[in-house]
Amino acid sequence: MSAQSTLKVGIVGLGRLGRRHAENLLRRVSGAVLVAACSPVEAELTWAKETLGINDLYEDYEALLAHEGLDAVFLVTPTSLHPHQIIQALKAGKHVFCEKPLSLDLNDCRRVSAEAALHPQLKVMIGFVRRFDASYQAAYQKIQSGSIGQPFMVYSQTCDQLDPDGFFVKFAPTSGGIFLDCSVHDIDLARWLLGNPKPVRVFASGTIAVHQDLQSCADVDNGVAICEFENGRIATFYASRTMPHGHETVTEVTGTAGRLTVGRNARQNRLEIADARGIRNECTPTFFERFEDAFLTEAAYFVDAIRNNTPLSLTLDDATEATRIGIAMRESLLSKLPVML
Amino acid sequence: MSAQSTLKVGIVGLGRLGRRHAENLLRRVSGAVLVAACSPVEAELTWAKETLGINDLYEDYEALLAHEGLDAVFLVTPTSLHPHQIIQALKAGKHVFCEKPLSLDLNDCRRVSAEAALHPQLKVMIGFVRRFDASYQAAYQKIQSGSIGQPFMVYSQTCDQLDPDGFFVKFAPTSGGIFLDCSVHDIDLARWLLGNPKPVRVFASGTIAVHQDLQSCADVDNGVAICEFENGRIATFYASRTMPHGHETVTEVTGTAGRLTVGRNARQNRLEIADARGIRNECTPTFFERFEDAFLTEAAYFVDAIRNNTPLSLTLDDATEATRIGIAMRESLLSKLPVML
Amino acid sequence: MSAQSTLKVGIVGLGRLGRRHAENLLRRVSGAVLVAACSPVEAELTWAKETLGINDLYEDYEALLAHEGLDAVFLVTPTSLHPHQIIQALKAGKHVFCEKPLSLDLNDCRRVSAEAALHPQLKVMIGFVRRFDASYQAAYQKIQSGSIGQPFMVYSQTCDQLDPDGFFVKFAPTSGGIFLDCSVHDIDLARWLLGNPKPVRVFASGTIAVHQDLQSCADVDNGVAICEFENGRIATFYASRTMPHGHETVTEVTGTAGRLTVGRNARQNRLEIADARGIRNECTPTFFERFEDAFLTEAAYFVDAIRNNTPLSLTLDDATEATRIGIAMRESLLSKLPVML
Amino acid sequence: MSAQSTLKVGIVGLGRLGRRHAENLLRRVSGAVLVAACSPVEAELTWAKETLGINDLYEDYEALLAHEGLDAVFLVTPTSLHPHQIIQALKAGKHVFCEKPLSLDLNDCRRVSAEAALHPQLKVMIGFVRRFDASYQAAYQKIQSGSIGQPFMVYSQTCDQLDPDGFFVKFAPTSGGIFLDCSVHDIDLARWLLGNPKPVRVFASGTIAVHQDLQSCADVDNGVAICEFENGRIATFYASRTMPHGHETVTEVTGTAGRLTVGRNARQNRLEIADARGIRNECTPTFFERFEDAFLTEAAYFVDAIRNNTPLSLTLDDATEATRIGIAMRESLLSKLPVML
Repeated sequence: MSAQSTLKVGIVGLGRLGRRHAENLLRRVSGAVLVAACSPVEAELTWAKETLGINDLYEDYEALLAHEGLDAVFLVTPTSLHPHQIIQALKAGKHVFCEKPLSLDLNDCRRVSAEAALHPQLKVMIGFVRRFDASYQAAYQKIQSGSIGQPFMVYSQTCDQLDPDGFFVKFAPTSGGIFLDCSVHDIDLARWLLGNPKPVRVFASGTIAVHQDLQSCADVDNGVAICEFENGRIATFYASRTMPHGHETVTEVTGTAGRLTVGRNARQNRLEIADARGIRNECTPTFFERFEDAFLTEAAYFVDAIRNNTPLSLTLDDATEATRIGIAMRESLLSKLPVML
Repeated sequence: MSAQSTLKVGIVGLGRLGRRHAENLLRRVSGAVLVAACSPVEAELTWAKETLGINDLYEDYEALLAHEGLDAVFLVTPTSLHPHQIIQALKAGKHVFCEKPLSLDLNDCRRVSAEAALHPQLKVMIGFVRRFDASYQAAYQKIQSGSIGQPFMVYSQTCDQLDPDGFFVKFAPTSGGIFLDCSVHDIDLARWLLGNPKPVRVFASGTIAVHQDLQSCADVDNGVAICEFENGRIATFYASRTMPHGHETVTEVTGTAGRLTVGRNARQNRLEIADARGIRNECTPTFFERFEDAFLTEAAYFVDAIRNNTPLSLTLDDATEATRIGIAMRESLLSKLPVML
Repeated sequence: MSAQSTLKVGIVGLGRLGRRHAENLLRRVSGAVLVAACSPVEAELTWAKETLGINDLYEDYEALLAHEGLDAVFLVTPTSLHPHQIIQALKAGKHVFCEKPLSLDLNDCRRVSAEAALHPQLKVMIGFVRRFDASYQAAYQKIQSGSIGQPFMVYSQTCDQLDPDGFFVKFAPTSGGIFLDCSVHDIDLARWLLGNPKPVRVFASGTIAVHQDLQSCADVDNGVAICEFENGRIATFYASRTMPHGHETVTEVTGTAGRLTVGRNARQNRLEIADARGIRNECTPTFFERFEDAFLTEAAYFVDAIRNNTPLSLTLDDATEATRIGIAMRESLLSKLPVML
Repeated sequence: MSAQSTLKVGIVGLGRLGRRHAENLLRRVSGAVLVAACSPVEAELTWAKETLGINDLYEDYEALLAHEGLDAVFLVTPTSLHPHQIIQALKAGKHVFCEKPLSLDLNDCRRVSAEAALHPQLKVMIGFVRRFDASYQAAYQKIQSGSIGQPFMVYSQTCDQLDPDGFFVKFAPTSGGIFLDCSVHDIDLARWLLGNPKPVRVFASGTIAVHQDLQSCADVDNGVAICEFENGRIATFYASRTMPHGHETVTEVTGTAGRLTVGRNARQNRLEIADARGIRNECTPTFFERFEDAFLTEAAYFVDAIRNNTPLSLTLDDATEATRIGIAMRESLLSKLPVML
């Protein structure tokens, strides 16, 4: 499509994150316009109509794909639906943005890639939103410019604030486990920041510190893992559902001449409070507040890539690789053995 | 106007800050639409046409005010024009947002207030943007909720990064001097955070550390001041044009039970760099990066207040008072005596 | 004296700070030995005997000075006694270390200097302990090496933790007021770090935030001041008795090429605590914890200077100048006028 | 021995760390006196004589042990000598302080323990100095008081500054490898802070980022490891010889209600520097500067325990366990398999 024309986008799924994407697409992403919404949940469609003023509403995904003039879809749906929905969209000639992870199943990842290969004119991007965060972008640029010499070691964590009600537990059985749900972001970051080295082997461990109900689905609420890559690159991961103070995503990249750290101290803003307990800052409660701007940058990047027909730096292979490593971690957690990749 | 209708806005002045406001109004402020632009500079109008797609362009301010259906103007013009342009807009029945400061002349401030009093249905707000920054908002809420007991002391600084070329020096003669140009923000913050106490007396001092050319207009590039308010409230101010590391706006409010600090360490993002020189973060180069989000929040607040006809928390009296205190500081700097208010 | 011989020291005054000095001198200061103690308070002498094992105990200062072989005295006595006690010690041929401030009276300062001039072979040093703190030393070295270009602006604060019982209030009448008691340290630091410029003028203000009893002695519990020095150097001071979180001594020096800050965030140690309230560190409760190491370094410096007969970098003139500026601040606070120096 | 009597100590080994201990024992440890020194290196004995004034100097360890009235020895000797020297001292009736690690050989550890069991009246302590650091002590106290709920996860790193000359490489073959040389500290901290849980299994990995010569002794310059303990406790370790910015020891303990972090940002002092590169602090170059105070506290603790005959909280079993886990990590690094404990 020409850079002059505006991209017509349909949103699929209007849960909390879907609504965020919809609001961004409605007004804030230059070159795109939200023209339609799809959800099996009536209340979500009502919200789209009343809050966003979207009139073209669909309960059925295929009907959305048939919407006159639609250029692209944003899939913010359950992970199990991703592969089929992406393939349907591609067959219908639509560009696809899909929330992470691509899939919990490696064959599904490959089927999506195979289909995408048949449509080289269509863009497909999985939403590894952290790559679009300003601090991660700055880190990436510094690595590219040689500031830290040769990067060889990554530590990356995704730690969510403790929800005493354990709301997430009911989604645990379909989440793929903590590594595929949380660490998949860190895996993608590690690969990206280390220059996409081939993974060789993973080892994982974990524990249930709070949410005992996770036992029934063989999941943990705190997991650690080591991933060895070729050429002596190593990444260590930590994922937690039980942080006391907020959502804290941290990534540290060590090179031969310097070290970069993103996100230590998940400060919510620029306010410091001194009182009888010391000096403190409050923290971002969830990834929503932490990556608010990045969701917008991500959507703008995707839209620009379509309008200018430029290649995406974040590919389906990246998403597949993240799933592949995440699966290996889960296997290692269960088998108690290192898993070769 | 009804909350349902969209506010039609015209922008006046398309310098760096004017363009920021224009871009926000064009797409990002819910309930507003940018319909027209006015500038005596042809290149600025060309930019509005080509980049924003605005077709209704005016070289003449009165012509803009006559634009069919215009509801409000955003004045991002030289300070000397503010009073007359605000008064013209009010007479034409338009709401007015105007960049700070209201004026460098106290009589002009009062004339604007008098005119505004004749149009109670119209909103006028001066852009003390820091009030709309998330960190300052959080500080204000904590004070309101009693977290720090009774606030009695403020330290507030506006420090700009050193520009070795001294570009700002050519604007110094019309800027009103460092206190009216920079500290006026801090004065407004101090009044707001201390609960709008009456000022009693100011004392100021200053020095030229770098830009010797400022001598010709009796200005300084580093200034300090103390302002005493009623009931023993005190504020200390620092303004600088010569910071080595970036723009650093800091405000500290001390109360009987706690202290709040906004903005210490003007970190640009969440990245920390460790290398042979230690551990460091980079800093926000200018107020643009520091208050990027606040400019948007400010515009949204103003638009919402008009659409819902709710009173503004930031009044013309606030703006007048900031100018009054800033003028007294300049007098003290020159006379070397405390100035009563 | 020869560098080989050990300095025999007598301590005078065994309050909290005197005991600290005594313990340092007893064992930890190389080249010195504590041989005698003097106090009018019996319990203090008992402590010296039982805890330190000092057997030569004096109620009378002159008797101490007559102690066989005594080389030096450490005066940790009420300020009002300093001048006479220093002069007596000099007349008796003893080196003198005396706690700050030298005196609250400028004539007394000068009398001490005059006496000291008669004994060029004796060392007299007033205990401006902060100069000996590792962080302040590092700042001084960086300034000397040109790291921040030409320093021209200092902000320095001495803020004590709030004692709800207001124990200090009973000493307020003889303390000289908040500027001579607290800011005298900051004044000394500002002079030192700015290269000892001549002071020109001061202006001060203050308020009683908590301790209303201070009204009776015309003192305040929070004070601010500006001191102008020659060549456009400026220092701003803040002293407080009411900090919620601990003792926080901060000094900021701004130069044409960099800025140094010592002591922001009075962190007690290297521990950070994350909990439901955010991320925090605890703070040093008093100057004792903050300057624990510096008291030792200070004593060692003084002892070495005597043993090696090297000139002191911290002179009686420095101490006199700090008192002179502090007195001017108090005058300004009372007269509400700038005071010329 | 009675609490009144002073402990007579002999130091063995006067390398960099030995000299530190000797200087502390000479003057700064209450209740102890350094009476003799032993070293096979003549220059070290000369230093002890000239700098410390110690006259009883021994080239031979057995001769030192025969020194009249000697109560205790401080062993700061090569690790390979530790077991035999400890056993000799015990047989000679001396208390023993010995630098970490106890030994690189598990049988040797056990032989020492067996010998010590025969001398219950003698104290033996291995110098895991970090336990005596004020920040680690504060962390331990907070855990004991329940501040973070139930601790279950530790991350601990020992990262040394890069020495481009690779001086350490020549000691690598006898160091036991990076895990026994560096991580042994972190292992001890993890056990201590988690409440001494039984280790179950370790997995380790590593890479050579800079010092290729380490290949010849099957060592790495960057290593990571996971240790699983009983009851779902987990510790992750990182050791590095190649940090760009200084020595950075960090330990993070996560519990069900809070998280404690010691040592993030290895700031050297309280000075912050702002310049054109941002805002930074310098870092502690080596563990000497980082743990300077802790070496003194450690010695004082050991001396007090002997004089008061109180049990040591840091036992030979602790030291043995740290070696046992460290050996397992090295095995895992080499075998590429998890190692059961």
